[in-house]
Amino acid sequence: MRTIIEHAWVLTMDPQNTCYKDGYVIIEGSKILKTGEGPSPLGGDRRIDAKGAILMPGMVNVHTHVPMIPFRTMGDDCQDRLRRFLFPLEEMAVTPALVYWGSLYGMAEMLLSGITTFLDMYYFEDQAAEACDKAGMRGILGETVIGQKTCDSAAPYGGLAYGEDFIQKWAGHPRITPMVCPHATNTSSPEYLQKTFAMCEKYDTLFTLHASEMDYEMKEFAENYHMTPTAFLDHLGILTPRTLLAHCIHMTEADLDLTAERGASVAHCIGSNTKAGKGVAPVKGMVSRGIPVGLGTDGPSSGNTLSMFTQFRLFASFHKTANHDRSLFAAKDIVRLGTSEAARAIGMERRIGSIEPGKEADLVMVERDSVNMFPCYNPFSALVYSAERSNVSRVWAAGEELVRDGTLTQLDLEEIRGRLWENMGDFIKKSQEFSSII
Amino acid sequence: MRTIIEHAWVLTMDPQNTCYKDGYVIIEGSKILKTGEGPSPLGGDRRIDAKGAILMPGMVNVHTHVPMIPFRTMGDDCQDRLRRFLFPLEEMAVTPALVYWGSLYGMAEMLLSGITTFLDMYYFEDQAAEACDKAGMRGILGETVIGQKTCDSAAPYGGLAYGEDFIQKWAGHPRITPMVCPHATNTSSPEYLQKTFAMCEKYDTLFTLHASEMDYEMKEFAENYHMTPTAFLDHLGILTPRTLLAHCIHMTEADLDLTAERGASVAHCIGSNTKAGKGVAPVKGMVSRGIPVGLGTDGPSSGNTLSMFTQFRLFASFHKTANHDRSLFAAKDIVRLGTSEAARAIGMERRIGSIEPGKEADLVMVERDSVNMFPCYNPFSALVYSAERSNVSRVWAAGEELVRDGTLTQLDLEEIRGRLWENMGDFIKKSQEFSSII
Repeated sequence: MRTIIEHAWVLTMDPQNTCYKDGYVIIEGSKILKTGEGPSPLGGDRRIDAKGAILMPGMVNVHTHVPMIPFRTMGDDCQDRLRRFLFPLEEMAVTPALVYWGSLYGMAEMLLSGITTFLDMYYFEDQAAEACDKAGMRGILGETVIGQKTCDSAAPYGGLAYGEDFIQKWAGHPRITPMVCPHATNTSSPEYLQKTFAMCEKYDTLFTLHASEMDYEMKEFAENYHMTPTAFLDHLGILTPRTLLAHCIHMTEADLDLTAERGASVAHCIGSNTKAGKGVAPVKGMVSRGIPVGLGTDGPSSGNTLSMFTQFRLFASFHKTANHDRSLFAAKDIVRLGTSEAARAIGMERRIGSIEPGKEADLVMVERDSVNMFPCYNPFSALVYSAERSNVSRVWAAGEELVRDGTLTQLDLEEIRGRLWENMGDFIKKSQEFSSII
Repeated sequence: MRTIIEHAWVLTMDPQNTCYKDGYVIIEGSKILKTGEGPSPLGGDRRIDAKGAILMPGMVNVHTHVPMIPFRTMGDDCQDRLRRFLFPLEEMAVTPALVYWGSLYGMAEMLLSGITTFLDMYYFEDQAAEACDKAGMRGILGETVIGQKTCDSAAPYGGLAYGEDFIQKWAGHPRITPMVCPHATNTSSPEYLQKTFAMCEKYDTLFTLHASEMDYEMKEFAENYHMTPTAFLDHLGILTPRTLLAHCIHMTEADLDLTAERGASVAHCIGSNTKAGKGVAPVKGMVSRGIPVGLGTDGPSSGNTLSMFTQFRLFASFHKTANHDRSLFAAKDIVRLGTSEAARAIGMERRIGSIEPGKEADLVMVERDSVNMFPCYNPFSALVYSAERSNVSRVWAAGEELVRDGTLTQLDLEEIRGRLWENMGDFIKKSQEFSSII
């Protein structure tokens, strides 16, 4: 099966930032066969005229908790929300069915906004994998290991045993990478941080966790260890090229040096960090040191939209303002943080993140007919400063067209929402116990 | 003509923040007749079932330069963009036809995102008024007075004479308020700041200008007058209840006290200010002093989207982060800055900005069927953290339904874009003289 997409403004996001203003991309099976300027030199089974549209790589969301759809718009403006009601409500009310339907809903939302690969951390992650298999997306799915009772384990650290079964079950899936991950630097004991890391080494996966995110986390590490969380991870021997640190809001200059030296990566969640008033991670210092940085939406409870466009716009505004420099992080560099650099941050840069022959056919078409997309002298500017989810018209993952005319081709959103809603009754009832807080 | 809207989640934005979860609003002619919970007690010529939708007041955009659509995505990341190419390109290439078609396009965009009232500052403002008359929106339209040659005046300050003709021509229009406005504190002489203010007094309009926006503006006033721009405006006797200061990024505590004391208002443009890396205005200090603050998109060249949803999300993120407090500015308070408080900032709070009997029937319906709008425990959170332009399904201004099913009822977007494009040839050609800059 060969599909020819022609007459698109192709942003390849390759290392040379090659763009074709009237370009073609040829998909063969699940891979990109050929790209170039002008009409396609080859014939195909299907030809798509993308005149007027932007064609970019499938976007890569390097940090989320996608099953958390049922929490969206709940207590957004509440102080210390994680410990005051997210943790207890999760433990009381999250079920396998909620995770399955919530995940499938969230994946539908990501696909509709042009995200084709995501890294997830949650509980009952086997259910998220089932949803990901059905959705046709690419998922790096981490079962959470945490030192407390959770919805899927009566004992602390139960995620480790759950996770090993989960890894063995999904090993070898072409689009799904199962793994385990500690929740955060301060919610697992040092021993379990190392045990979890050892399992990641054993199965040769990424090792990711929340790090340098919370004020109180920083304070605890200073008091207990006289070290930053980053230095402590290094002290434990688990700050490595397989390590992806999520958030990193409070990293010091020394932390940045150490992270660069050890070859670790960063998942930057500007939307959720700033909505919570937590602060702005020092991304300029990360990028200048060559640390791979990808953007993450965070979960729909924390970041609300599962759209990379929200992250692009917030990223531009926050980092230009933090550095008092409008020319810092030009739009083309920001799009990279949601595509090629994001792929590098999760170690998948040889397979995804750019439109190049031999890479996976993960592609997004953004229409320019909607009112917010005109004029478009600079497509990167349009993507960063103007575009929104609804401008995404077509999406391919692994060569499958999963979105056409802004609509899912293989999933039924109404049905998913209906099934999710059916399963939310008890969750909503239990959430009312927290009504004085939220 | 009486229209009944029923079964909506009505956010009245009245002083008590009354909401009706299954509410009705009755429109009679151009006004709101009655609102309440439950089914409508009165019959009507037309009944609209708004089940599942949010109904809110038409949004109020207190600062824009709507004719600047042709500049969008041009040189977004360029340093000192205003003086290096916006001013010269404007003077060289902006024509009455560009202003007319650019304005009409921008108004279409605002309507499609739920904005029904806007305050504009530009040149050839008579053309913007023609477009506003056609679009059916409510416009407070200011001809710019500036101490340099412009596209509509060979002599500096030509806007003053143009403006008086313009005011007289449009006086008494039910939706259009013509006025004049100085460009900024530092681009008009003190004498012309006062002359312009005198004309605003003569015709009893608002007096608005860019103030405390630029680093170099602050420096100039410190060097030349040993005063802040705010103090200087007061020194000239033109910081008054009719004064609306746009931007106010660099206001000091003393400036805030003085602004509150004089009863002046602020137009806060978080999107354009932060995209340019300029800084974050001290809005917490404004609101705590009772200064009326409204949100502005700024022009499509500076703010890119003409959507209030962009401002809501950025406002939340920036002010919570600046104050390190996620509970500051709850979502319901942010929606107020784009509706009732914005109306107060432009002195129109008795006519618009909330859904109350006797007020103008300016209404926006936001659908909740799109993927990003579920679940919705808190409609204010959904509007601030999740909603985007494309979720707007219906819009009424002065009782006229101007948007239905997310589409303009009275304007043809394709035609407007086509006519605008026809008129952009020379503009684009001249813009190429700045290609080394942008």
